[in-house]
Amino acid sequence: MKVLIMGAAGTIGQAVVDRLGDRHDIVRAGRHGPDMTVDMTSPESIDSMFKRLAQVEAVVVAAGGAAFKSLSELTPADNETAIESKLKGQVDTVLVGQHYLADGGNFTLTSGVMVDDPIACGASAAMANGGVEAFVRSASCELQRGLRLNVVNPSVLDESWSKYGAFFPGFESVSGERVGMAYQKSIEGCQTGQIFYVR
Amino acid sequence: MKVLIMGAAGTIGQAVVDRLGDRHDIVRAGRHGPDMTVDMTSPESIDSMFKRLAQVEAVVVAAGGAAFKSLSELTPADNETAIESKLKGQVDTVLVGQHYLADGGNFTLTSGVMVDDPIACGASAAMANGGVEAFVRSASCELQRGLRLNVVNPSVLDESWSKYGAFFPGFESVSGERVGMAYQKSIEGCQTGQIFYVR
Repeated sequence: MKVLIMGAAGTIGQAVVDRLGDRHDIVRAGRHGPDMTVDMTSPESIDSMFKRLAQVEAVVVAAGGAAFKSLSELTPADNETAIESKLKGQVDTVLVGQHYLADGGNFTLTSGVMVDDPIACGASAAMANGGVEAFVRSASCELQRGLRLNVVNPSVLDESWSKYGAFFPGFESVSGERVGMAYQKSIEGCQTGQIFYVR
Repeated sequence: MKVLIMGAAGTIGQAVVDRLGDRHDIVRAGRHGPDMTVDMTSPESIDSMFKRLAQVEAVVVAAGGAAFKSLSELTPADNETAIESKLKGQVDTVLVGQHYLADGGNFTLTSGVMVDDPIACGASAAMANGGVEAFVRSASCELQRGLRLNVVNPSVLDESWSKYGAFFPGFESVSGERVGMAYQKSIEGCQTGQIFYVR
């Protein structure tokens, strides 16, 4: 299967590459490539990426940022990072990509544990993740040509714990290997409209 | 209690006014007033509204639109309506308003049944509602000075059924009176971070 991974340079993207790299034809996309450049905050850039790709069977989005600030300091302008990348970047990949994927293809988006298990400074990221999950539940009912759409909702990865662990007191981290398996289930399985939790 | 209702001219806003009008001092805000004009897609306009209001104890947001289109026709540009009003309009009201509300005050936002019970043509609205609910769960943990934050998630109102019922085959509509009671519970009760379902 030809699998496009947006955000392949990140920790989750790498976990997906590790899990699927020797089973599929991987195309790694990101702001700096390496295989294909894309700016996920621009629907035109996403469209151009799909045009250049030719037919693709699976798309993983493991990209998108958010401002981590205490609520009292979080401004509407700060919130734009999550709106533009983590939320619209993922949603627009589906809205644009639905017209390019091969029949029976699939999308796998990414949310995260703080959507329903809040952390301090996480309101903006939670908002984006909640929007993505609700979009997946709804949009998956309407996709045509047998296209499927799921989302993986992981806890913090073991591999990211040294960087982000302080934000997640008392949370259990999960291995990149288990996270990669959730993406594999979405891509190679038959389900649609699902949230695959890795906790 | 001084209660600001954004979107008082809508069906839900009217239900809230009907329920609370003789118990509280109601200020109705909307694009065309009647008591106060506000453009919820502009953080500056929201800020100006709170400055003019002076101290307020409770804020209800019952405003915000979305494009209802089949997924195959929904474009990133169409999705902007829900992003700007239903999602950012509600979130920004909290981000800005947290600095103006009286100690112990409260916000009540509005989502809707399609966030977890999808309908055709509802993916954009579902996305916005999901973002709002996740934001409420997370942000409510961090509000200061005893401020509270909840969201009401109603099914279609009886009063809107003739207009929207065709989008909701097999759904049960709910009375405006019951919906008004959910806002009353949020405003006059003690809970925070809750989704009050009216089904």
